[in-house]
Amino acid sequence: MAEPADLLISRGHLLTMAGDGVGYLADGAVAVRGRTIVAVGPSVELEHRYDAATRIDASGHAVLPGLVDVHMHTHFAVVRGVAQDVGHWMQGALAPYARHLDHAAAAAGCALNVVEAMLAGTTTMSDYLRPFPGWGEIYARAGVRAVLTPTINALPPGGMAGWRIGDLYPLDEAAGEAALARALEVVERWHGAEDGRITTMLGPQGPDMASRELLGAVRREAERRDLSIHMHVAQGDREIEQMVKRHGKRTPAYLADIGYLDARLLAVHLTEATDEETDQIAASGARMALCSGSIGIIDGIVPPAARFKAAGGVVGLGSDQASGNNCNNVFNEMKLTALFNKIRFRDPTVMPAGEVLRMATIDGARALGLGHRIGSLEVGKEADVVTVSLREPNLLPVLDHPVRTIVPNLVYAGTGKEVRTVVVAGRVVVRDREVLTLDVEAVMDRAQAEGERIARAVAADPLASDLALARATDAGRL
Amino acid sequence: MAEPADLLISRGHLLTMAGDGVGYLADGAVAVRGRTIVAVGPSVELEHRYDAATRIDASGHAVLPGLVDVHMHTHFAVVRGVAQDVGHWMQGALAPYARHLDHAAAAAGCALNVVEAMLAGTTTMSDYLRPFPGWGEIYARAGVRAVLTPTINALPPGGMAGWRIGDLYPLDEAAGEAALARALEVVERWHGAEDGRITTMLGPQGPDMASRELLGAVRREAERRDLSIHMHVAQGDREIEQMVKRHGKRTPAYLADIGYLDARLLAVHLTEATDEETDQIAASGARMALCSGSIGIIDGIVPPAARFKAAGGVVGLGSDQASGNNCNNVFNEMKLTALFNKIRFRDPTVMPAGEVLRMATIDGARALGLGHRIGSLEVGKEADVVTVSLREPNLLPVLDHPVRTIVPNLVYAGTGKEVRTVVVAGRVVVRDREVLTLDVEAVMDRAQAEGERIARAVAADPLASDLALARATDAGRL
Repeated sequence: MAEPADLLISRGHLLTMAGDGVGYLADGAVAVRGRTIVAVGPSVELEHRYDAATRIDASGHAVLPGLVDVHMHTHFAVVRGVAQDVGHWMQGALAPYARHLDHAAAAAGCALNVVEAMLAGTTTMSDYLRPFPGWGEIYARAGVRAVLTPTINALPPGGMAGWRIGDLYPLDEAAGEAALARALEVVERWHGAEDGRITTMLGPQGPDMASRELLGAVRREAERRDLSIHMHVAQGDREIEQMVKRHGKRTPAYLADIGYLDARLLAVHLTEATDEETDQIAASGARMALCSGSIGIIDGIVPPAARFKAAGGVVGLGSDQASGNNCNNVFNEMKLTALFNKIRFRDPTVMPAGEVLRMATIDGARALGLGHRIGSLEVGKEADVVTVSLREPNLLPVLDHPVRTIVPNLVYAGTGKEVRTVVVAGRVVVRDREVLTLDVEAVMDRAQAEGERIARAVAADPLASDLALARATDAGRL
Repeated sequence: MAEPADLLISRGHLLTMAGDGVGYLADGAVAVRGRTIVAVGPSVELEHRYDAATRIDASGHAVLPGLVDVHMHTHFAVVRGVAQDVGHWMQGALAPYARHLDHAAAAAGCALNVVEAMLAGTTTMSDYLRPFPGWGEIYARAGVRAVLTPTINALPPGGMAGWRIGDLYPLDEAAGEAALARALEVVERWHGAEDGRITTMLGPQGPDMASRELLGAVRREAERRDLSIHMHVAQGDREIEQMVKRHGKRTPAYLADIGYLDARLLAVHLTEATDEETDQIAASGARMALCSGSIGIIDGIVPPAARFKAAGGVVGLGSDQASGNNCNNVFNEMKLTALFNKIRFRDPTVMPAGEVLRMATIDGARALGLGHRIGSLEVGKEADVVTVSLREPNLLPVLDHPVRTIVPNLVYAGTGKEVRTVVVAGRVVVRDREVLTLDVEAVMDRAQAEGERIARAVAADPLASDLALARATDAGRL
């Protein structure tokens, strides 16, 4: 007699990510009961074994674990496109917009980014921002997996718009304590919420933006609550300069001093890390968030992920922010990661397709400390699953032998828009490219309106009177 | 009284590419009569002035000149995904498949690639391959603009599968003469066909694959018929090594010797060109085809397009081939060109979005010698026009002032799948993402079947017994 199941996805090209490769299974099926994968195997077998309430025919589709985005700033989607192709990206382009990005705008950007990412097959979103009311609720409603990191810094109110490049930032202990308190409220409210679909980390915004005391307080809270610490590390020459000026040492040495270099740390960017520093951080057990697209566009740099991996470290992919990437799409990150690293090493064999697909799935899950729950299609894991149509003019043909073409074509020719079905914790949240959980039209309307509101405020702001991209716009180049 | 028009596209964000920027016009319209643009201006004005048989409301869309792909090998789409992430891409991965790629397979690949490119907004396809029966007919039927370059080489029959890396290629004068004769048949049949929508060039496959005599014969034919010469130049260490071994000099010096360096030449790749050689070629008036995606994936190299432009040269973008890129999508080329060059120079201001959009449109047209006919939305030019939906979760918001976000978001966040309408020479060939001129399902079926047929032949071919990617497949990494 057939066993009951809630969902059966069958007849697809399974990329399970089990083992150390891509775990390919031809004509494969995934059976789900509740939130959990109960079987992975040949379609013919599982179709007989399970009587499933919902069946999805994945013929002509790849079926893979939901993609994991380990580092996003979703609020910035509301000003997508205002900051790129410039030097001093933050101070020279984004900061004047960020200054006017209030709670309502942040919520609009976040929802837009969540929809964008869902439609590109991202099921886990690790979001790192100054918390705004309704943040967790967006993820609760969207039905995707979220790791919320409320950022903590000791910068005085007003943001970065007034700083001069090269000045030491002022640090404000009271602001830092307030930020930590706000962060802990998010942790209390959301860690483990939605049956564990939403979790949290603690997020010092960077070693340069908090005092040693504040970082110590964060560390103590992280240990007490067994939370990871999600932090920008060696993210740019600006940070390193601040660290040397304030503490007399570069970031990795400082982090070692204050006890931050261990498996609790998700270190974001490492843009400026030397080879030795990269090895040191990887050896500590810390994980790395690699944001190829954003660091490429902002700095023209390829971060040292290949070395981090070679040193035994785990690397996940992050899309960072829309204004300075300018998309939040793990397909984009896979492709750019593979290509940028080939260019960095002038070697086409570096970062092959299967390896970056692992970074986007199981390694991303491990980078977030969720490798035991998600990241592969294996019995006992939660059912985060996406189907991707391969019957597309940009992905055909599907060849199997002697060379299997599915993974290289997903990585190098896929755009994310071939994703058809998205399942998170057993629930179908996107079906035939339709988002079932959010009103996409309303999300787009709101993002447009909020973006326009910010743009009007920037236009009226004397601090924003000399933006390079405004000059380019006026000159007809944009 | 209203004037008659055949087509009016109105209410869009026009990116006309007129002048030296992007030629933005808010709420703009393009009126077309026959094949030709008869007016470009404010919607309110043109909607009153013209009584158009077909009207397209482009509200919420960008309207831009059709994209120009200056260098494709469309037949290889039939083996998309069999060659990447390896050293010696040609000999070690593609050649065993290319060996079995017969006329029927080439036609299937070409049609697949044409559909893929149309759906990504490419209206002009500069296709460079060994001619097969029905090649021109595919473009005639598709209704897109084509520049056909039948390749000419003096390689003996059997292709490159049997060569050993480092050996001097054997050249076979009879094979070369036959190839030139075949090429001239294509020129006779297709140059100026379809009311000029299809044109041709002559295409020595590379300076290393033809004798000096054959190159001389090609040159004489090109002059006599006033055709451009479309040729791989300094395309890899393999070519340079052959040139030095056979002729005692590197490619650019050799081309100068034989009178090839002038405005008639479209020089493809320049991967191995030194700074001085790049300057020399640009100064000659020759144009450059930049294939960022394919050279990145195959060689891990960023070709010297920035220098070529700085030296006054014109650069267009090419998608090269699906097996070693792995897509034929000018959106992909724009993004990779901007990002790769930022990385090459470690400078985010290099190759800004507006500049790469020009390379994909007007500069591409100029690179093909078609700058007087297409590449911008201007009165008197042929109406190659695409509309791109901006009301997409990955492209919103659309902000106008003080920074206009449309171009950066198209370049960095667009995938090509936001293209809605494609018009070539005044005729709508894609409407709401539906290809009106070809049976897309049949094209996909045929590509799949032909790809499978080639794969079976490769599996049975002793010459292909030790493919690196077959080993990777067997090891579960693909």
